[in-house]
Amino acid sequence: MSNTGEMEQKVGEMSVAEGEQELEEDIVDPWTVVSASAKGIDYDKLINRFGSSKIDAELIARIERVTGKPVHHLLRRGIFFSHRDMHFILDQYEQKKPFYLYTGRGPSSEAMHLGHLVPFIFTKWLQDTFDVPLVVQMTDDEKFLWKDLTLDEANRLAHENAKDIIACGFDINKTLIFSDLEYMGQVPEFYRNICQISKLVTFNQVRGIFGFGDSDSIGKIAFPPVQAAPSFSSTFPHIFNKRKDLPCLIPCAIDQDPYFRMTRDVAPRMDCLKPALVHSTFFPALQGHRINKYAFSGGGATLEEHKEKGGNCEIDVSYQYLTFFMEDDTKLEQIRKDYTSGELLTGDLKKELITVLQKLVSEHREKRAQVTDEIVKQYMTPRKLAFDY
Amino acid sequence: MSNTGEMEQKVGEMSVAEGEQELEEDIVDPWTVVSASAKGIDYDKLINRFGSSKIDAELIARIERVTGKPVHHLLRRGIFFSHRDMHFILDQYEQKKPFYLYTGRGPSSEAMHLGHLVPFIFTKWLQDTFDVPLVVQMTDDEKFLWKDLTLDEANRLAHENAKDIIACGFDINKTLIFSDLEYMGQVPEFYRNICQISKLVTFNQVRGIFGFGDSDSIGKIAFPPVQAAPSFSSTFPHIFNKRKDLPCLIPCAIDQDPYFRMTRDVAPRMDCLKPALVHSTFFPALQGHRINKYAFSGGGATLEEHKEKGGNCEIDVSYQYLTFFMEDDTKLEQIRKDYTSGELLTGDLKKELITVLQKLVSEHREKRAQVTDEIVKQYMTPRKLAFDY
Repeated sequence: MSNTGEMEQKVGEMSVAEGEQELEEDIVDPWTVVSASAKGIDYDKLINRFGSSKIDAELIARIERVTGKPVHHLLRRGIFFSHRDMHFILDQYEQKKPFYLYTGRGPSSEAMHLGHLVPFIFTKWLQDTFDVPLVVQMTDDEKFLWKDLTLDEANRLAHENAKDIIACGFDINKTLIFSDLEYMGQVPEFYRNICQISKLVTFNQVRGIFGFGDSDSIGKIAFPPVQAAPSFSSTFPHIFNKRKDLPCLIPCAIDQDPYFRMTRDVAPRMDCLKPALVHSTFFPALQGHRINKYAFSGGGATLEEHKEKGGNCEIDVSYQYLTFFMEDDTKLEQIRKDYTSGELLTGDLKKELITVLQKLVSEHREKRAQVTDEIVKQYMTPRKLAFDY
Repeated sequence: MSNTGEMEQKVGEMSVAEGEQELEEDIVDPWTVVSASAKGIDYDKLINRFGSSKIDAELIARIERVTGKPVHHLLRRGIFFSHRDMHFILDQYEQKKPFYLYTGRGPSSEAMHLGHLVPFIFTKWLQDTFDVPLVVQMTDDEKFLWKDLTLDEANRLAHENAKDIIACGFDINKTLIFSDLEYMGQVPEFYRNICQISKLVTFNQVRGIFGFGDSDSIGKIAFPPVQAAPSFSSTFPHIFNKRKDLPCLIPCAIDQDPYFRMTRDVAPRMDCLKPALVHSTFFPALQGHRINKYAFSGGGATLEEHKEKGGNCEIDVSYQYLTFFMEDDTKLEQIRKDYTSGELLTGDLKKELITVLQKLVSEHREKRAQVTDEIVKQYMTPRKLAFDY
């Protein structure tokens, strides 16, 4: 996976032609997220275009009813906002039938930052709540194909990033983390499923879905089935006792949906189940926040103006960050009220955020420091997990 | 590999547009071999178009000088007629430096017929003469992608065909036979090399080389690097002690050359050696021979005419078969003379051929019957061979 939760300003990667004209609609695919409007991505429109379903109050109520506990704040606050077939997964759960979780990470940087961790924080909640196996794909092959990286470097980053993922607290007895470059040479079912998928998808289709062109490498063209294959339980014979009928739920950022639209399209022709999905919005870019202070702050231009007119939480990045990371609903609501009224100043809001982030970061660093290479190796070994099928 | 030595009449697979107009030149790629002229493929033109080199008297003399023995009749009689970098391989051999052989088979039918065995008969001679390791790729993935076959069926055919290949007499201590579907899940270096190659080849290039179109599956588009990868010794870490600098010589039918033009193009950019090749002509189709008796016989239309004008060995399929399978030069030359003069009748020629073929077939069947599943498994296990690097 390329972009797990972070909205990056990728205008530099757009062609001149795209950059010059005004966009009629948001561009959202695994490699480009560009908004057509200053207000940012229009997620409701995206749901319409992609054909997914909104996570509404009724679905949230059903999750709470079925699991007997309040949903995670990332769900409650609309950060995970869209889904496909989530009701089917809940049906399974109600009937005590098994399913599994699949998510991933494109290992392109040495250390993961908090934005990268958002989908994993939510995935950990899903695993704990539903007590199901989790497979985490490290697409080191993808990063090799798209970036100026060697295979060894991409694979090394996969292991480094695995430490951050493990530090999120996933149960070692219920979690497999795997690097594509390694798993391909360990478990023949991976390549077999890739062959099955690849036979059913044409170049025309991947051009339409992913925007591939004639001068793209055949490595890129061949990649989507690699990300699709873990949606099928037969890709993990050690875990699922060679069963191919176990449903899969994929938590991911909405930009990864194209892969799974393709997967859902081929699944019935392979006699497989379509994977279900829960989609998150993008994490606001920290860089934009720092550089473009006024555009991304919702505070008044002067102290007087702020006290008089109040701040705008809708566009304030510090406030948005708090919705991702501050767990306490009551406190967050108080901050929203006080900032909106002008009582809480921008500096105070930022101080709140810094306190929350510093705590999260230092706790994460501490946990990560305990993750040895030996522990990484255990998580990354194809093996049976603590479930019988 | 799709077509190892057999010329098939694949007009049925051509597009209507191609079928309607007269061909300006022969079509020769891994899936289509169609001649523009009734005389058959013009191999000299093919050498020019492909940019390979003719195997001339001087090269043959050098091989005999260097190896100290007469060349195989398939070389002597121009059935292996074209090469790339064969002089480099002979330089290596003279300097007592190692190289290895790579050939393959697309397992699409239950049993291989004699035409399919021609490249293996020649490869066996190469292995015995140069005393080098041989790797044989069974492209069961390719057959799954191109044909209406399941993965299991394609893989089963790979094992069946391996028996025929083993029956050719390859030294078990010097030969690895591998199925793509199996080897991919056993040896990570295979996929790693595929990634490396795939990154360097664009869709435009494979369209130009292989004629892929927009409605071809991405499985087909992704396949050429799979056939290319065994050209690099790093694909076989067990055999070559992880060395990536060992030269490769590929005996194959000329229709497989597009794969290796692509391979030779990317090799320097991967810091790898370009594979050397020896190319064969196509084995005349037995089917055409049976059905279209007159067109493919070089005999006179009547007994009188034959006795008066003589037969034409150039176009007589029975005679062509003898050039492939009759080892005795003196006897073959006598037959050529007698048939050309009209002394030897078409029926006699066919009788000669049947005798030769029956002997070959019965000997082959006997050897094949001795190849147990256990022996196949031994040949197909990734392992060190009887060479140290």
